[in-house]
Amino acid sequence: MLFHVRMDVSIPRDLPADARADLLAREKAYSQALQSSGKWRHIWRIAGEYANVSILDVADNDELHEILSGLPLFPFMKITVMPLLRHPSAIRADDS
Amino acid sequence: MLFHVRMDVSIPRDLPADARADLLAREKAYSQALQSSGKWRHIWRIAGEYANVSILDVADNDELHEILSGLPLFPFMKITVMPLLRHPSAIRADDS
Amino acid sequence: MLFHVRMDVSIPRDLPADARADLLAREKAYSQALQSSGKWRHIWRIAGEYANVSILDVADNDELHEILSGLPLFPFMKITVMPLLRHPSAIRADDS
Amino acid sequence: MLFHVRMDVSIPRDLPADARADLLAREKAYSQALQSSGKWRHIWRIAGEYANVSILDVADNDELHEILSGLPLFPFMKITVMPLLRHPSAIRADDS
Amino acid sequence: MLFHVRMDVSIPRDLPADARADLLAREKAYSQALQSSGKWRHIWRIAGEYANVSILDVADNDELHEILSGLPLFPFMKITVMPLLRHPSAIRADDS
Amino acid sequence: MLFHVRMDVSIPRDLPADARADLLAREKAYSQALQSSGKWRHIWRIAGEYANVSILDVADNDELHEILSGLPLFPFMKITVMPLLRHPSAIRADDS
Amino acid sequence: MLFHVRMDVSIPRDLPADARADLLAREKAYSQALQSSGKWRHIWRIAGEYANVSILDVADNDELHEILSGLPLFPFMKITVMPLLRHPSAIRADDS
Amino acid sequence: MLFHVRMDVSIPRDLPADARADLLAREKAYSQALQSSGKWRHIWRIAGEYANVSILDVADNDELHEILSGLPLFPFMKITVMPLLRHPSAIRADDS
Amino acid sequence: MLFHVRMDVSIPRDLPADARADLLAREKAYSQALQSSGKWRHIWRIAGEYANVSILDVADNDELHEILSGLPLFPFMKITVMPLLRHPSAIRADDS
Amino acid sequence: MLFHVRMDVSIPRDLPADARADLLAREKAYSQALQSSGKWRHIWRIAGEYANVSILDVADNDELHEILSGLPLFPFMKITVMPLLRHPSAIRADDS
Repeated sequence: MLFHVRMDVSIPRDLPADARADLLAREKAYSQALQSSGKWRHIWRIAGEYANVSILDVADNDELHEILSGLPLFPFMKITVMPLLRHPSAIRADDS
Repeated sequence: MLFHVRMDVSIPRDLPADARADLLAREKAYSQALQSSGKWRHIWRIAGEYANVSILDVADNDELHEILSGLPLFPFMKITVMPLLRHPSAIRADDS
Repeated sequence: MLFHVRMDVSIPRDLPADARADLLAREKAYSQALQSSGKWRHIWRIAGEYANVSILDVADNDELHEILSGLPLFPFMKITVMPLLRHPSAIRADDS
Repeated sequence: MLFHVRMDVSIPRDLPADARADLLAREKAYSQALQSSGKWRHIWRIAGEYANVSILDVADNDELHEILSGLPLFPFMKITVMPLLRHPSAIRADDS
Repeated sequence: MLFHVRMDVSIPRDLPADARADLLAREKAYSQALQSSGKWRHIWRIAGEYANVSILDVADNDELHEILSGLPLFPFMKITVMPLLRHPSAIRADDS
Repeated sequence: MLFHVRMDVSIPRDLPADARADLLAREKAYSQALQSSGKWRHIWRIAGEYANVSILDVADNDELHEILSGLPLFPFMKITVMPLLRHPSAIRADDS
Repeated sequence: MLFHVRMDVSIPRDLPADARADLLAREKAYSQALQSSGKWRHIWRIAGEYANVSILDVADNDELHEILSGLPLFPFMKITVMPLLRHPSAIRADDS
Repeated sequence: MLFHVRMDVSIPRDLPADARADLLAREKAYSQALQSSGKWRHIWRIAGEYANVSILDVADNDELHEILSGLPLFPFMKITVMPLLRHPSAIRADDS
Repeated sequence: MLFHVRMDVSIPRDLPADARADLLAREKAYSQALQSSGKWRHIWRIAGEYANVSILDVADNDELHEILSGLPLFPFMKITVMPLLRHPSAIRADDS
Repeated sequence: MLFHVRMDVSIPRDLPADARADLLAREKAYSQALQSSGKWRHIWRIAGEYANVSILDVADNDELHEILSGLPLFPFMKITVMPLLRHPSAIRADDS
């Protein structure tokens, strides 16, 4: 089941440099593990912004929230979610 | 080059039924031809709305506008565009 | 799987009275059938507005959209959807 | 009498960890006591957000405010309230 | 129980003059009957706008909606509602 | 002359407890003195919010601003003002 | 007593040309009579828009509303009002 | 050439009292010098807000920006600008 | 003197095809004459929208409004204006 | 390929004066190098605001983001991007 997720990141300036670096490394590892498992289907950077658009493929709303609230950057992000489904004009096998 | 496009459709009530059916058939054919060519990379329906989120893969802004303004439903849609690029954490070959 | 749905209704003034009455009768029957089946878990009127807040319990996003886009009033409603899940403080068995 | 309440939580980063833990424990106990009494009829997490949607069943506006302003997290929440009532299409005994 | 209600009126231009006059006469009578009964506690015009702010004193949300949805101008108004209660600094007997 | 005033309060967390208590005591005294004089005609709490709706009855805009900018909580409030006048359907002597 | 008024004009396309011309002539005469009397203190066009910013100098809110609601273009305008007063740094005799 | 300028002031709480007093004194002197020279044509306080509406009469956009960015309070203000011109219905010699 | 102008076009569906074609031809000629004269310095299409961003170089606000209100499409456009000036980091001779 | 970029700057007050001066010097050098190379086609100050409108001419979205995210002021700016293309009425050779 697909969800469209937009994440806008805003890391506080007073976070020490190493805490910040650690946070970003954990975020990257977390995201890539989920991409490898197929649950984080797509991720794109929005040009000019510290933000991404992602497509998640999860079993249900619980799993969606579990993944998002587990993001190392979760306390520093504004997240907006839209449920998606296959479009009647879609031809790609993997657009649903 | 990837663009995130959201299209919200609002077809006037007074459009005759056959004109409407013809319009929708042409829209579907137009979209599917571009999906086949690879330029319309993804299309998803947003649950509960007469709207879609699409990812277009075009040569440049000119081609993007040529495709969008050529949509049979273009006069009846509100379109919003965001330029995308590969996210530094992306692992899929086709997320750029 | 639960979804929070808000529906704001705006029926055009020029719809003939009997078409309007028929539409509303079909909307009521449609909603009540889904309430009986358990898929439309709750529905409340918002005081002072021609609008409702509903909780739907569906298998997935596809079923959610199928139900919402099938509403007789769908062409005359603005619908907004939020995916819900069990709250960690919830004690009621049926809040998930 | 039913009210739809949305609560968006934002706990300051500089709150010490134990103060935060204590706050959350008191919030949970407070909410569960009211759920047990029947006054806090429903509570759901909104997927991807540190926010909930709740349905309160109170005697009047005074009791509603007394409950909400007494929330341990009240100073750290944005709360929005909508009065609800039974929908004319509702069939469940407990949707009013 | 008090509610703050704002009503913004927008009567369609194509309503015939006598239908409009009749509508406004019925609206006035409806409002004045409720003011006499004490349920419509206050009504003020907002300067420069075809809008009013009102304070209603009703038994519950049901009665609030029954009154508002029964307004002759209801189909032509945007209504927004806020539940009110006695302010801890209030000294007037009738501010609750 | 009547004005509708909405005040949303946001007291900084780092204000010492006694400074806060003193501030609130002065605010209450200030408001009650103006209520006694008849210039602060009504005040209601908005349910679920640290906010009030008030009706002020002042000689002119200067007096309105003098009263509002003199509020002990003025630096910590967002204030919005709307000029009111007697509604043509009003029947109460004191709704103007 | 001064008020800042912004008026955004939107005349329906289907108004016959002579009705429109008559309306605009009456609007101009109405405005100029009030400018002559000193009640309509200033009027400026906003560049690029069919809109104006005006300063009215009236006895009270009642007179303000009487003037604005009497505008021939009133049914076709969106009006927003802000009460003004002398600024503590003002040096001009006529800025209050 | 006239410009409509709205300035909303928000001075940080942690600015020492004498720095604040000095800032406000310099702001007042700066504004009054420009009022004397005729470049700051009008200034009014907005009732209930720490904000003003001003009319500036400058040679061009460069001079407008030079004046506004030179305001001692510039770092603590949100400024919005609208270019104005003589209204076709204006009768005052000095409304352009 | 430079102004940033955004124009969003919305031509009514019921405008006859030849009236529409005539309107667009006159708009194009009008724009190109001003581009030739140097007053309409730049014009770009916004991708995916029936809208443009333009830079106008005019003597003053009066000329700006004369040009914009004279656009054949003026009745069918939403126009927003921002005054611009040379940026302190600009190096191009023609960016002012 | 052209992009319209608006940058709103907000430098924290607690940044030491020399860090701020260094930041601004690096920002200016960065911008001017890109202007010299032709990639930063235009830059204008918005009157009354600490903001600019720029036109960038880049190879693709990747280069756009590389330039914008590399701005020394990037952590202190809100950036909004719109893809542009040649307008069908444009006559200047360099408006595409």
